[in-house]
Amino acid sequence: MTTATFTDPYHSRTTDTWESASRVDPTVWGDTSGPLTPQQLESYQRDGFLFFPNLLTGREVESLVAEAKSLSAEWPSERAGLVREPDSDVVRSIFRLHHFSDLYQRLFADARLVGKARQLLGSDVYIHQSRINYKPALDGKEFFWHSDFETWHVEDGMPRMRAVSMSVFLTESHEFNGPLMLIPGSHETYIRCAGETPVNHHEQSLRRQEYGVPSREALKQLVHQSRGIEAPKGSAGSVVFFECNTMHGSCGNLSPEPRVNLFAVYNSVENSLVDPFCNRPPRPAYLAEREVTAID
Amino acid sequence: MTTATFTDPYHSRTTDTWESASRVDPTVWGDTSGPLTPQQLESYQRDGFLFFPNLLTGREVESLVAEAKSLSAEWPSERAGLVREPDSDVVRSIFRLHHFSDLYQRLFADARLVGKARQLLGSDVYIHQSRINYKPALDGKEFFWHSDFETWHVEDGMPRMRAVSMSVFLTESHEFNGPLMLIPGSHETYIRCAGETPVNHHEQSLRRQEYGVPSREALKQLVHQSRGIEAPKGSAGSVVFFECNTMHGSCGNLSPEPRVNLFAVYNSVENSLVDPFCNRPPRPAYLAEREVTAID
Repeated sequence: MTTATFTDPYHSRTTDTWESASRVDPTVWGDTSGPLTPQQLESYQRDGFLFFPNLLTGREVESLVAEAKSLSAEWPSERAGLVREPDSDVVRSIFRLHHFSDLYQRLFADARLVGKARQLLGSDVYIHQSRINYKPALDGKEFFWHSDFETWHVEDGMPRMRAVSMSVFLTESHEFNGPLMLIPGSHETYIRCAGETPVNHHEQSLRRQEYGVPSREALKQLVHQSRGIEAPKGSAGSVVFFECNTMHGSCGNLSPEPRVNLFAVYNSVENSLVDPFCNRPPRPAYLAEREVTAID
Repeated sequence: MTTATFTDPYHSRTTDTWESASRVDPTVWGDTSGPLTPQQLESYQRDGFLFFPNLLTGREVESLVAEAKSLSAEWPSERAGLVREPDSDVVRSIFRLHHFSDLYQRLFADARLVGKARQLLGSDVYIHQSRINYKPALDGKEFFWHSDFETWHVEDGMPRMRAVSMSVFLTESHEFNGPLMLIPGSHETYIRCAGETPVNHHEQSLRRQEYGVPSREALKQLVHQSRGIEAPKGSAGSVVFFECNTMHGSCGNLSPEPRVNLFAVYNSVENSLVDPFCNRPPRPAYLAEREVTAID
């Protein structure tokens, strides 16, 4: 444990108790010149997320789904970035799409998406992480509550809260297939987690998370301070933008259809990664991009 | 495996593949003399469940919750019927309330509840099983899809589909606390499960179910034949009646409050238990009452 840790406003996993701290960064970094309206900015500022039903067309969704299928079928076994469900061989996620797919690269650079990210982050942006998430029919597992930023800061060395996640629904999201759940307003509070980061934590954390998990008491406080829990629901082609520190999770998928979504993180080019804020080597590039290539 | 097995219309766990069979019993055994209206009977006949929002008053719910707390605190350690969560000491269920609580006995005999059960089953009724279910805040686990009748038939010796389950909400049921989910119309189909019943199966099945689980293909068929999945939601004091063969389950509880409900099974006095339909001794009385005491 270095002394630098304690000057870091977002230190976490540095003691054996949890702690609640205030966010020290703005939520909206850009100005009001658009494309988001002042009302949308205000809503994002307050809740830490924004929902855009049917942002993409049915035809666009079809080609994104087809690409997901062919990536999954043709993924070279020696290439990192394909993660399976706990206790089975079913594919849960495929990572680094911005690197391995021209189609997804073009999508992430589409003005309807990247324009919003640039405004929220007040700068040019690049992709920190991207992936397809498959939540298999009937057996798709629960993801417990977490802040992505806590992990990206501690394990990847993302300095500040200046990134925004984007979830693109490739299938309808409804109450029975484990939709994304968010705690509105939770992005204003940073929950330091208890415990240290184990070596090579990512090898098991992508299957079952045990460190960097917020305490039950912290979660109770966050929901009670909030107006509750929200789960945006809508057709394939709908998109949620959520702030990197917004607490989120999802239940299992007990419906008879898989739930598929596309996930990408826009990070500010002024917030590129430094050394991790734990005494561990950085995670692999498929989880945390270290090449900063601003999107045109 | 006895030859008798194959003359039993509801044999299950008798081969290593699953099978779908038609229900051979009526769904509604009684007549139209009330208390349920013809519309309610029709709805139960079609869907296999009926929902009554706010059937009990707030004051009644308060006393039922208080009783649940005192039972939990005072349960003698040598008495069977208290079941904990997998991987923790948190209480998940307390059984045989009709035996150990005067208050719950009176509730189960309340005309607003037992009257409906008598009409649906067309006879006097007794309590086959009763319990409190606690789904703890944040850590309440998923219950996978199942038909109660399959287990009660195979492991307890309940001869026919002439029982109705009742779930009384002691806390609000909402989309984030793992509400009861049902497949409308699934009571018309009996899904035979694959595999044999292990000895003393109940000792682990109450924690994690591995036998008597319907196949994924069977569940896909049931949902596709149906109008989807339904999860009745409402305040504490609401009550769901569901047919003993209706396929049901629930997601985990990721909300910061426990979800508590009271569960009781009314069985027809003409459908009392015989020897189990597997070559195993019957399960203990707290899971399957063998004393038939018709409710006055």
